[in-house]
Formats: sequence, structure tokens, C-alpha cells
Amino acid sequence: MSRLRVHNFCMSLDGYVAGPRQDVEHPMGVGGEQLHTWLFATAFGQAMLGNDGGSAGVDHAYAVAGTTGIGATIMGRNMFGPVRGPWLDDPWRGWWGENPPFHHPVFVMTHHLRPALAMEGGTTFHFVDAPPEVVLELAAEAADGGDVRLGGGASTVRAFLGAGLVDELHVALVPVLLGGGERLFDGALEGYAVLPPVPGEGATHFRLTRQGADGHARAH
Amino acid sequence: MSRLRVHNFCMSLDGYVAGPRQDVEHPMGVGGEQLHTWLFATAFGQAMLGNDGGSAGVDHAYAVAGTTGIGATIMGRNMFGPVRGPWLDDPWRGWWGENPPFHHPVFVMTHHLRPALAMEGGTTFHFVDAPPEVVLELAAEAADGGDVRLGGGASTVRAFLGAGLVDELHVALVPVLLGGGERLFDGALEGYAVLPPVPGEGATHFRLTRQGADGHARAH
Repeated sequence: MSRLRVHNFCMSLDGYVAGPRQDVEHPMGVGGEQLHTWLFATAFGQAMLGNDGGSAGVDHAYAVAGTTGIGATIMGRNMFGPVRGPWLDDPWRGWWGENPPFHHPVFVMTHHLRPALAMEGGTTFHFVDAPPEVVLELAAEAADGGDVRLGGGASTVRAFLGAGLVDELHVALVPVLLGGGERLFDGALEGYAVLPPVPGEGATHFRLTRQGADGHARAH
Repeated sequence: MSRLRVHNFCMSLDGYVAGPRQDVEHPMGVGGEQLHTWLFATAFGQAMLGNDGGSAGVDHAYAVAGTTGIGATIMGRNMFGPVRGPWLDDPWRGWWGENPPFHHPVFVMTHHLRPALAMEGGTTFHFVDAPPEVVLELAAEAADGGDVRLGGGASTVRAFLGAGLVDELHVALVPVLLGGGERLFDGALEGYAVLPPVPGEGATHFRLTRQGADGHARAH
């Protein structure tokens, strides 16, 4: 039984998961990089940057949990890159360089299809134009018995939440104010329970679980 | 120097400080009473209900802090009562019975003026139709050297925040989802810093302080 999990989704105290005015210079919006400060302070985050060191406490444990047991990833196009509209001749290959940190199949949801892009280290980007249910089915099959991680952005997560497809959502609440931007939560959200929060060094960790959740997408 | 303080303002994880469809039956909106569960679990909250017992930990300390050093209170009309429009012949006397828990002057902001209402125990409700700056000046004078507490509802707090008049705002973040209702934070909010959160038994406590805040309203 494959589960669909969201991890390390960072939200400001005023409810924003990206700051205002997102563009190439500000992929997380103006001020949005503050949402990730806690993550880069951990050993996990430092390793992402190729560094030693970093904290190994609660925040680190939550960061690591986001990679445990994951066999495939789904993300929206805006998390893959800043390009809008049709792909160009020399197309964007993701934010993460030639050896992205996924090491498994990644399904990028876009209305502009293009051939799969095999990167170093086992990551292959697949571009799919399909509803959440179908994308999840593809990803669960590709995960080969593992769970599927749902990345961002917020609108992609809301689409899967709205369809009742998310089994678990970890929100890292960061004690900053962004004063505008994109919200994760925006109105009705049925069928989720919130577990007691766990205080970390730089974020407070909340987990939502789908009530009665036992996995929507079966691994084939 | 009198400061303007907001305490125990309860917010759900999805950012709502009242649930949807507020009315006499549901003064906090549908599901909104979940926002106060942590408060009524404390010794402070139990004492409000006339009971002994209750917890005496972190949540209790935050609840008590909301009454310490306060000489006057400001609230919006909707926190005073559910009546809308002109007052009736037998007017509403507040949610709190004949001996309200304030024991000091309370300024109720309303466009419908009425005579001051002296209750038992030292609480007098004054009805004022004036902008936030003016109401704060009146309240600071009445506080007689104490601080002024700003109650709710959310729109009243937003009005004072927007005018840069709030010196300190304590948000008790409650791990529930309301799925709709009224937000506290809605867009730009300049000049406030968030202190590191403090985990309580039933809520996580965030404090915003105005940067450079040294008290706006002088006690006269």
C-alpha cells in the first residue's frame, strides 16, 4: 500500500508558504527564503549544500523523515522551474543541477509535455498532463512499493488535498511573518486530524493525517 | 508609558481565529470553541468558570499574563455581544454576567452609542464611536498607569495592528483545522518581529513585538 506524503512544507506564522512576487530571482517570493532557514541549519540541509556539520536534533529528524521510504515524487511545474508557458529550445533541467537529490522517478505536472529527462544519480523527470488521481497512480506504480512524496507548490498540494489523496502532511511552522504571498490553507479541508505539535529548534512541526487513511494508491 | 497588548488570541493551524457562520448560538463560529479548549484546561480557565483545579503549566502562565498589569480593555462590539444595529430597549449587558472578569474600564467600539454601563466588581463598559488612536488614548488615560489590553474580534485587532498601535500580540496556535472563518492575519503587517515560540500543553505560544516599540499611548 503506497501512501502519499507531504513533508517539510514550510509555513509562516501568518499562513504563507511563499512570499509575494515570486520570480526567477525570488523563487520563494520576497522574504520566502526565511521559511527554509531552519532546514539549512540541520545536518540534512547542510549535506544538501555539500557541507559537513549542521544540527542533528528535532528539525533534522523531520527533514530526514521526508526522504525515508519514498520511491517517487510528484511536483507542480512551478516547483520544477521558473519557466512559464511552452518549454524553450534549451529547456530548463530543474533547480538542482545534474545530480538532483531525488534519486528516483519524479513526475512534473505540466500542460506542456516534453520527453522524460534522465539525470545523474537515478533521478528521471517525467512530464505529465493529467489529473491528480492519474498522476498519483503513475507515481505509485513507479515507486515500486515505496511511498510517494508530494512536493510543491502550494497549489499542487491543495489540488491533491482537495481530492482527498494526501495521507499525511507535515507542516513546519516558522516564526516569521511574510505579510503576503501564497497560502497553503484556504478554506474547507475535510477529513484531516492534526497531531500534537512537536517543537523543533527553528520550526514547530505539525502533522496532519487523513482520518481513516490506509493508503489510496496501491503500488502495482 | 502605557502599552497596548493582545493576549491569548487563539488561532487554528489553518489561520482562523473564529470558525464559519458566527451567530448567537455559535459566538466563535462553527467549531470555533475548539480554539479555547487549551484555555479552559488551565487553572486560570477553570477559575473563570468558578471551578477549582486545572493545569498550572505553560498554558496557564500565558493565560494569566493576559491580566497582569492591565488597567483598561478595548474590544469591538462583536466581542461585547451578538446584537447588531441599534441597541434594543432591554439592552445586552455583555457575555459575562453581572460581575464581568475585567474589574476595570472597558471601551466597546460601536457606531451605536449608549450610556456607560457600570457592572459589579469594578467593570464599567464605555461605548465609544471613534478611530483606534482616539479610543486608545481614552483607554490609556483610564488605565491609570497600567497597560491597555486589546480584546477582539479579529477585525478590531487588525484595525489597531494596521494603525501600528499594538505593542505586543500573543497568538496561541491551536493544532486544529477550522476550514474557514475569520483570519487574524490577512496581508501586509510591517514592523513586527516574532519571538521564538514556546510550546504549551494545548497550544503553542507565539509573541509578536513591535520593533522599536516603547509604548505609543502615554498614560495621562
